[in-house]
Amino acid sequence: MEIIDISWPISEQMTRYKNKSVIQLQTIKTFDHDKVRQTSILMDSHTGTHVEAQAHFMHDGITTDKIGLQQYCGRCSVIDMTFVGDSITDEHLSLVHIEPNSILLFKTTNSELEDNAPFDSNYVYLSESGAAYLSEKQVNAVGIDYLGIERSQEAHITHRTLMENNIVIIEGLRLRKVHAGNYFFICLPLAFVGIEAAPARAILFEDF
Amino acid sequence: MEIIDISWPISEQMTRYKNKSVIQLQTIKTFDHDKVRQTSILMDSHTGTHVEAQAHFMHDGITTDKIGLQQYCGRCSVIDMTFVGDSITDEHLSLVHIEPNSILLFKTTNSELEDNAPFDSNYVYLSESGAAYLSEKQVNAVGIDYLGIERSQEAHITHRTLMENNIVIIEGLRLRKVHAGNYFFICLPLAFVGIEAAPARAILFEDF
Repeated sequence: MEIIDISWPISEQMTRYKNKSVIQLQTIKTFDHDKVRQTSILMDSHTGTHVEAQAHFMHDGITTDKIGLQQYCGRCSVIDMTFVGDSITDEHLSLVHIEPNSILLFKTTNSELEDNAPFDSNYVYLSESGAAYLSEKQVNAVGIDYLGIERSQEAHITHRTLMENNIVIIEGLRLRKVHAGNYFFICLPLAFVGIEAAPARAILFEDF
Repeated sequence: MEIIDISWPISEQMTRYKNKSVIQLQTIKTFDHDKVRQTSILMDSHTGTHVEAQAHFMHDGITTDKIGLQQYCGRCSVIDMTFVGDSITDEHLSLVHIEPNSILLFKTTNSELEDNAPFDSNYVYLSESGAAYLSEKQVNAVGIDYLGIERSQEAHITHRTLMENNIVIIEGLRLRKVHAGNYFFICLPLAFVGIEAAPARAILFEDF
């Protein structure tokens, strides 16, 4: 069974949100000196591919460890939104058949951006109307192929709408090589206790 | 399909290798001050559940990003070694049917230790003879339910034997609630580029 890796490679050269978020990989033991290699990792919880929980933007929101993996691991649809210029709206989404409890991954032109490119502040995002539409459809989880699912929105309305409707947000997917269609999605954030987001590895299996 | 999480919960209180390895979760944005929560993560590459590559102990060894996920994700056997007092030896392993290319997870009394207990330096480990036996059997990957797969061994012979035979090592599994038997194992380390080990989330599905 082929595994399709849709995670953002993590390095000090990788794209960072607004070119600001921190990632440092420091060698603390070297083979020549210690006969063993060991690395210290300093990273933001929103580095690369990551899962966001309500606690990111909601006062009493839950943290990532309180979300069952079942909510965002399972059969999913990769949806072609590469024709969208600015943001994914309710109109774009009305073209798609969306089941309740589904997991949707949006492939946009963001996936054309290189893994290590400077941050592009004109990335395609999910609009307020798009977030409201997905809430109405009662989807379980939504993934996007850039480091943010919204852009320059007052009061973070896309995030808040999704979070208030218990929709899990996965940011930082890489979908360039993936065709639209149905897959089995496994997204595993590190098992942090009590924080608002967690870096994750995400893969697809061809549907079975 | 039930997901069985066998990852070590990550927090500042968790068990750390020899009580030394670093884990700090620092809140850098708070809801009250910033209307958003954000966390900075400082951790050792060998924190909690993690995958180790040859580069940890071999001069020219590969790093985790160079190991195909297929090598350690797939059908696996959870093997009951709770009767072992000190270390898993070739004699213990000779009691088990082992196929080439298999993925083996050893459940020992280590799994009885609490997630946040102080480091126990008497953990059950894989002996040199056990590592040699698994190499002869040409297994693909081996997992253990503590933060080390060897203990106080000169020249790290268990690690080196496994690594020289291209056997992937997964440390820090938590198997207390898992019965021996066959499962589908998914272990996804973060997608770090060029380092010798990577923290991971690991799950089991009931065999299907």
